[in-house]
Amino acid sequence: MRFKFPFVAICLQLSMIILFGLFVGYENKWQYYAIPYESWVFFISLLWDIGNIHVMTFLGFGFLMTFLKKYGFSSVGINLLIAALGLQWGTLIRGILHHRQKFYIGIKNMINADFSTATVLISFGAVLGKISPVQMLIMTTLEIPVFAANEYLVGEILKATDIGASMTIHAFGAYFGLAVAGVLYRPGLRRRRHDNEKSVYHSDLFAMIGTLFLWMFWPSFNSAVADTGDHQYRAIVNTYFSLAACVLTAFAFSSLVEQRGKLDMVHIQNATLAGGVAVGTCADMAIQPYGAMVIGSIAGIVSVLGFKFLTPIFAIKLRIHDTCGIHNLHGLPAVVGSIASIVAVALGVADNRGRVGRADQGGNHLGSSQ
Amino acid sequence: MRFKFPFVAICLQLSMIILFGLFVGYENKWQYYAIPYESWVFFISLLWDIGNIHVMTFLGFGFLMTFLKKYGFSSVGINLLIAALGLQWGTLIRGILHHRQKFYIGIKNMINADFSTATVLISFGAVLGKISPVQMLIMTTLEIPVFAANEYLVGEILKATDIGASMTIHAFGAYFGLAVAGVLYRPGLRRRRHDNEKSVYHSDLFAMIGTLFLWMFWPSFNSAVADTGDHQYRAIVNTYFSLAACVLTAFAFSSLVEQRGKLDMVHIQNATLAGGVAVGTCADMAIQPYGAMVIGSIAGIVSVLGFKFLTPIFAIKLRIHDTCGIHNLHGLPAVVGSIASIVAVALGVADNRGRVGRADQGGNHLGSSQ
Amino acid sequence: MRFKFPFVAICLQLSMIILFGLFVGYENKWQYYAIPYESWVFFISLLWDIGNIHVMTFLGFGFLMTFLKKYGFSSVGINLLIAALGLQWGTLIRGILHHRQKFYIGIKNMINADFSTATVLISFGAVLGKISPVQMLIMTTLEIPVFAANEYLVGEILKATDIGASMTIHAFGAYFGLAVAGVLYRPGLRRRRHDNEKSVYHSDLFAMIGTLFLWMFWPSFNSAVADTGDHQYRAIVNTYFSLAACVLTAFAFSSLVEQRGKLDMVHIQNATLAGGVAVGTCADMAIQPYGAMVIGSIAGIVSVLGFKFLTPIFAIKLRIHDTCGIHNLHGLPAVVGSIASIVAVALGVADNRGRVGRADQGGNHLGSSQ
Repeated sequence: MRFKFPFVAICLQLSMIILFGLFVGYENKWQYYAIPYESWVFFISLLWDIGNIHVMTFLGFGFLMTFLKKYGFSSVGINLLIAALGLQWGTLIRGILHHRQKFYIGIKNMINADFSTATVLISFGAVLGKISPVQMLIMTTLEIPVFAANEYLVGEILKATDIGASMTIHAFGAYFGLAVAGVLYRPGLRRRRHDNEKSVYHSDLFAMIGTLFLWMFWPSFNSAVADTGDHQYRAIVNTYFSLAACVLTAFAFSSLVEQRGKLDMVHIQNATLAGGVAVGTCADMAIQPYGAMVIGSIAGIVSVLGFKFLTPIFAIKLRIHDTCGIHNLHGLPAVVGSIASIVAVALGVADNRGRVGRADQGGNHLGSSQ
Repeated sequence: MRFKFPFVAICLQLSMIILFGLFVGYENKWQYYAIPYESWVFFISLLWDIGNIHVMTFLGFGFLMTFLKKYGFSSVGINLLIAALGLQWGTLIRGILHHRQKFYIGIKNMINADFSTATVLISFGAVLGKISPVQMLIMTTLEIPVFAANEYLVGEILKATDIGASMTIHAFGAYFGLAVAGVLYRPGLRRRRHDNEKSVYHSDLFAMIGTLFLWMFWPSFNSAVADTGDHQYRAIVNTYFSLAACVLTAFAFSSLVEQRGKLDMVHIQNATLAGGVAVGTCADMAIQPYGAMVIGSIAGIVSVLGFKFLTPIFAIKLRIHDTCGIHNLHGLPAVVGSIASIVAVALGVADNRGRVGRADQGGNHLGSSQ
Repeated sequence: MRFKFPFVAICLQLSMIILFGLFVGYENKWQYYAIPYESWVFFISLLWDIGNIHVMTFLGFGFLMTFLKKYGFSSVGINLLIAALGLQWGTLIRGILHHRQKFYIGIKNMINADFSTATVLISFGAVLGKISPVQMLIMTTLEIPVFAANEYLVGEILKATDIGASMTIHAFGAYFGLAVAGVLYRPGLRRRRHDNEKSVYHSDLFAMIGTLFLWMFWPSFNSAVADTGDHQYRAIVNTYFSLAACVLTAFAFSSLVEQRGKLDMVHIQNATLAGGVAVGTCADMAIQPYGAMVIGSIAGIVSVLGFKFLTPIFAIKLRIHDTCGIHNLHGLPAVVGSIASIVAVALGVADNRGRVGRADQGGNHLGSSQ
């Protein structure tokens, strides 16, 4: 068995190299003397976004899971492994699905590859400590095509609005992970809980590094694929205020549901992020800052209640053991987000959007300037 | 008493939602087909700044305070709570003060809200370990209006130059915090010092995360509201070299004042940042790189001497117990900065500035292009 | 001896101030009403790069070395000290070498100063735990002029292509450090290995913070001085995929060479970065994404094998004790990179480049618009 992991990893990497050789080329629109400066503005704007989203994917998700004392290192290490595979595989699968021939990648493809990867990392939170690295590699290889097909269905066929991808990333990643966790359930898991899942002082501080980077850069996550202009601006502002509101309600309800009013570190580390998930579906709509704050406030409350009351029920009744509580951080808030989205559309605050993204606009202007 | 904290937090968040509903709307100038690309350059430049300043506010200030063994988690957690309230409340108060009617927020308002919040977080450093979360929420609610009024007075009425806000943020935050610490003084605090305030190996490394992020992103802090062009460029360059010089003098004097020449970790974590505070008042002036280095060198020395000699005097003679030594990191260097500013103005290196900021310029060009 | 360190540090800082006063001024091309907006696009693009490279220099290199239990704090602290000196001294030396009179610094000079500093920090990894802070200051003062002369020779005289500076930074820094480590070799070092060099659970997590920030921001390192347009775009894309491929092979070979297939944390922390070094020489060439992945895959393998088999040989046979294994992270992958560069040039994928950098382009357009 000792050679299984190296064998699988090397085979996967070799396959990636061969498939990239067959299908992936450079975008050819960046000749310096041919393009107008305007396009560079979008280029730099996308660089800013991908930098932030990279930090969320590799550092944020990785360190968030370190609150479990025993799995600290494996959460960060395996997170890096999965993410490195995920972004190669995600680039490929999305490109082939959209182009069905050789395609040419830009920064935006790389951002979308980060999104595919984020979905797998969310699912990883439910199975952390239950599966081996080699199983994780296989799960990554299987989950990304399903994710890409679902995203294609939702975005291209159904034309649903989900700018921050609450449904396609967060809900999908959470319920995929929970399904895998359900399959892997063994009764012994529950008994071992108190030994391996306890957090300790320092692991709590490491987890806060993950929490804070996710919190700070979430506006990029929700705005990276928004249309330039009003949509990108609103996606940043709405995410920002939704997250701020969510912190106060998460702290308040954490204190409320705990004995003697103490704050539970797990709530602080996770539920304070629920506002970013929930506002995702309608982040670029004109829901107004106070509307974003209402969504964030509700998400914070729902997430804490989920950790306190739903997770134990899942483990005991449904036999689904959710190691990091991803259902409370990603699943439930995404449901809040989809309700918010329905309300927003009913109220008429969603204008016509989704026509052109930033990278395309650069290209359009390039075309028109020649 | 168990329900006091949740009650206060929820009431505050509800008030924020109602006040935002009444007073805060979106900026309406970002329609993609209406604005020239030029404005997007400023937009992205402001995004870059707010990203960095956010990291300073949430991660930098939070982790800097983790050097205290016992308060590690509460410093990071309560820092997040205060900051989340502070940026909502700061956005509101500044907007109402400047507009006195419904106003429309852009990225620049959000940067200024981060500045309000930073002021409270500086004060927090003096009272850490002495007050409860609910008291912290109340202090935040009270300090921000006083900060905003003072900032309005200094900037709009007196037209004083203080681009990096050494006086309005650092000095104000430090002396406000010390005043609160003086009120809260109890003799027992001094005796408990050796138990709770000792730093340990790992808490020192966590604190260095805070130090380094503050150090690296301080150029954004001092340049974010500078005028576009020479002023922004100089504010970045001056802050950069002032901080670099400050590191060498802080290390040197830390070794000099300690027995056997050992370095004191608290000095390294704090005094290396004094150069950023001190150069703030005249960061955008043509003080030349060597001028910035002189200011930074002096600030590093003054800060170390403050930690070594002044903090004990404050605690014993003035009965002010300054938990994190904010007087040495923010108060004294701000005084150095105001002297530097007077010298710079006397030498005639301050040109006429302060007319238009970046966001406004974008707007101006928008106007002129239509 | 107690006063030696403060004396040296203060003398160095005083010299910097005097030399900056004589030689360094502000760039004078950023008057807001005189320059076209186009130049600001490059300005902001450089700000984005310098932000990321700063994080790599101060946080990345600093925390990467914390995996050694005993030297955790000194690695981060002394890293800050060296870097603060290095960027002042690097700015000066490069400027004087290129201009031989008073010169005017922009963001690009500051990026290049970060590169000088990175070279010293790489060398530091070989001598960590062997030399005192004062010796480190002296080594910094001596290494940077040699680095700058070598870089000038390679770039300006030989006109060699080395965009990510695999040779001038990584190979130079590694072999300079190893040479110093060879000189400092004492037999006792080997015996103390098991006590001071052991990593512990938390130090591994701290080191991963360094690893991840280096990993995430390496595309900026390799693209910061690339020509605008295709070259910058390709340098980002190639570095990104080389690093991703490198992670999989590093994990695979780490498991392969260890008994029982366990992963070695030191490999994960270091060898996962080898792809960034190796792709450096030809990062901006049209080597295609799959070409970058081949380079990264090989670098990951070579680096792990170096840690496992070469480092012990160096220590025992050559009497060179390489504390952090910089030969495996920087030296060997740079050799891989130079071979890759030869292959790429032979295959004709290197087009004519190196004519104008981004900052200069801004200036050119400025000239042409007047």
